Amino acid sequence: MKHRIYISDIASYKDQEVTLQGWVYNKRSSGKIKFLIIRDGTGMIQGILAQGKCEECALKMFDELTQESSVQVKGFVREFKNNFELSVKSLELIHKTLDYPITPKEHGTDFLMDRRHLWLRSSRQHAILKIRSELIKACRDYFDGQGFTLIDAPIFTPSACEGTTTLFEVKYFDDKVYLTQSGQLYLEAACQAFGKVYCFGPTFRAEKSKTRRHLTEFWMIEPEVAFNDLNDDMDLAEDFLEYSVQRTIKNRKKELETLERDTKILANTKAPLPRISYDEAIDLLKKEGVDFEWGGDFGGTDETVLANHFDKPFFVHRFPSAIKAFYMKEDPKSQKHSLSMDVLAPEGYGEIIGGGQREERIETLLAKLSEHELDPKYFEWYLDLRRYGSVPHAGFGMGIERCLAWICGLQHVRETIPFPRMLYRTTP
Amino acid sequence: MKHRIYISDIASYKDQEVTLQGWVYNKRSSGKIKFLIIRDGTGMIQGILAQGKCEECALKMFDELTQESSVQVKGFVREFKNNFELSVKSLELIHKTLDYPITPKEHGTDFLMDRRHLWLRSSRQHAILKIRSELIKACRDYFDGQGFTLIDAPIFTPSACEGTTTLFEVKYFDDKVYLTQSGQLYLEAACQAFGKVYCFGPTFRAEKSKTRRHLTEFWMIEPEVAFNDLNDDMDLAEDFLEYSVQRTIKNRKKELETLERDTKILANTKAPLPRISYDEAIDLLKKEGVDFEWGGDFGGTDETVLANHFDKPFFVHRFPSAIKAFYMKEDPKSQKHSLSMDVLAPEGYGEIIGGGQREERIETLLAKLSEHELDPKYFEWYLDLRRYGSVPHAGFGMGIERCLAWICGLQHVRETIPFPRMLYRTTP
Repeated sequence: MKHRIYISDIASYKDQEVTLQGWVYNKRSSGKIKFLIIRDGTGMIQGILAQGKCEECALKMFDELTQESSVQVKGFVREFKNNFELSVKSLELIHKTLDYPITPKEHGTDFLMDRRHLWLRSSRQHAILKIRSELIKACRDYFDGQGFTLIDAPIFTPSACEGTTTLFEVKYFDDKVYLTQSGQLYLEAACQAFGKVYCFGPTFRAEKSKTRRHLTEFWMIEPEVAFNDLNDDMDLAEDFLEYSVQRTIKNRKKELETLERDTKILANTKAPLPRISYDEAIDLLKKEGVDFEWGGDFGGTDETVLANHFDKPFFVHRFPSAIKAFYMKEDPKSQKHSLSMDVLAPEGYGEIIGGGQREERIETLLAKLSEHELDPKYFEWYLDLRRYGSVPHAGFGMGIERCLAWICGLQHVRETIPFPRMLYRTTP
Repeated sequence: MKHRIYISDIASYKDQEVTLQGWVYNKRSSGKIKFLIIRDGTGMIQGILAQGKCEECALKMFDELTQESSVQVKGFVREFKNNFELSVKSLELIHKTLDYPITPKEHGTDFLMDRRHLWLRSSRQHAILKIRSELIKACRDYFDGQGFTLIDAPIFTPSACEGTTTLFEVKYFDDKVYLTQSGQLYLEAACQAFGKVYCFGPTFRAEKSKTRRHLTEFWMIEPEVAFNDLNDDMDLAEDFLEYSVQRTIKNRKKELETLERDTKILANTKAPLPRISYDEAIDLLKKEGVDFEWGGDFGGTDETVLANHFDKPFFVHRFPSAIKAFYMKEDPKSQKHSLSMDVLAPEGYGEIIGGGQREERIETLLAKLSEHELDPKYFEWYLDLRRYGSVPHAGFGMGIERCLAWICGLQHVRETIPFPRMLYRTTP
């Protein structure tokens, strides 16, 4: 099994004999010539079996091959019209597949989701998860390259300090804990130790909503920077998003073609990204005839109406303090506004980034806790960060699945993660 | 706040005026000259305040500065004996710290762990987590560079198929699920779709042991490769370990010095790594006078006795089938042996990698499930992988905290993760 090669490396083996191992994706015959499409996970190649050029038994075996049977193929790599083909010499069946359940015909999503472990082999799902892998790499490389330190935030978090309605509870020996919804509070501690930090891990939300934008388990990347203010925070998000999106569409061109994704708007993700305030956003909505009262959060349709004004991702900043978390800093120019920001994707894909500047003064933070009816005793360690060398700081979070849904042009986030977990789905 | 620089970039600003923001690490006076050590998370620098060269008010403020107060400093960057210093011009106090609890004197581990959010600022903890960040990056870059696709395995896993004793249970709406202990089964599915895959995420073990090698939440990297056998698996682990360890010790030299870690043995992590069978390991133990019966698993002292024979990490392969999981393939040459392998770290740090070749034949796998008294109905989707294009495949897992404990030379894993979770610790 040692001297096999991968289809992704085929170009280096032009006119050489190679051994490939993979699965039968498709086959057809045209007169005396037989065509075998092999996939090995890294790519696909057409094998050509012609009498005289290939072993007799290989030709016989060809007729027996079924979709998704595993095979080993030996042959010569030939270039043909800027493509590589394999002139097959011999063929070995590793395992014969009978009645593969996913056929080229249409299947319902539930049927496919029940067979997610097999569905991953289909070209669309394969393409989406290759794009996911690339986007994640790009996001990590961005922060690593900018001198950020990776600080994995804990998954188990103690006592339910912000209400338990959307928290998953875990029996922890004789105690109980909750699954994290964000690493932010921990990163605020870490940024005072490392300056620039980020975390990237699974986060959990026990929302009973069955919408196309909700998973109970999803991955989030969250940077936090000491001494950054809201403007620095938007600059960072802008630069990060440009880098990650540009690199992903450059390195995953073929996969985006497989998805038939029009990448024109994705390619627009370049600084500067438009920045409008919440108040300006309301003016825009009103101009479009949307009845929107100051103080509320945008709904999906509001976001889409706003997005129609822009051909790239854009910032909405300075949301009302009242709809933001206790740690969000108030705008010194207007108490009712917070130093918060969201990035909305174009084309109606909604919020992909949310963040802002944090309150660094302990008295204000204590007042905020009391306003939000939160018990300060759960926040003792967090308050310490304001007792010992407090500094202005800011950060944000990007849900990787929502960003991917936009990049891939998917209506539902469920296909953006290998094994999605939703209200009614915990298998396979 | 915009034109600040980071201490890590100081060399580019030689003889220029810069603004730094950070925290007071230490200070001292020597006659009329005052020395201020500033840390900003990316490094430390000595600021020198001399009368006439620095504002009068800065000199006054110096006397007020306390450990961990946050400050902004302006000054000129000077090179002095291959080091950079800051000739301070002005000094601004951002936040004055009173009674910082972690002082240069000795504190107990519980005291420090209770203040983990502050302890991260100490130079040893800072060094360990910088090494962690580097090791993780190296591990990911290795697999990404080798054409592996990142496949995030799910955290929520359904029904407790392997017994619930060490599983954390989660209330999942009206149902219950468990927190993952390994992504392996899911990666076995994914490797048939992508050829070479890996996952890297938190895993959970509800072990009631309070040992120096146990966390309830720890991070694991797990590759899985279609068509790999046990030898390929060991080759991969060897190459991976060499790359990750060599890169980490090269890029984190300074931090390893901070830890006073002798890196000679770490530097030995180069292929070929010794490979001994379980049976050969027993012979070694017996020669050393250890009374060890064939069939058992190695304990900590056994591992240390074995490790004393090697000056680098080494493989032990072909453990008894009876002590390995149901999916481990039996050695075709000896049924009672399995195609499994562990990598043990030298210097008595124990197992850092475990893996092997998986059983790809459905009949054998069904028999194994029955032997292990596991209900096949929970494994239907997993059995599908053997129904549809089954292939030989192998993989392994490396717990990042155990590997880090070895690299950093730490007796206990608790300092290798930013916010450790243990039997009696879920805060901060």
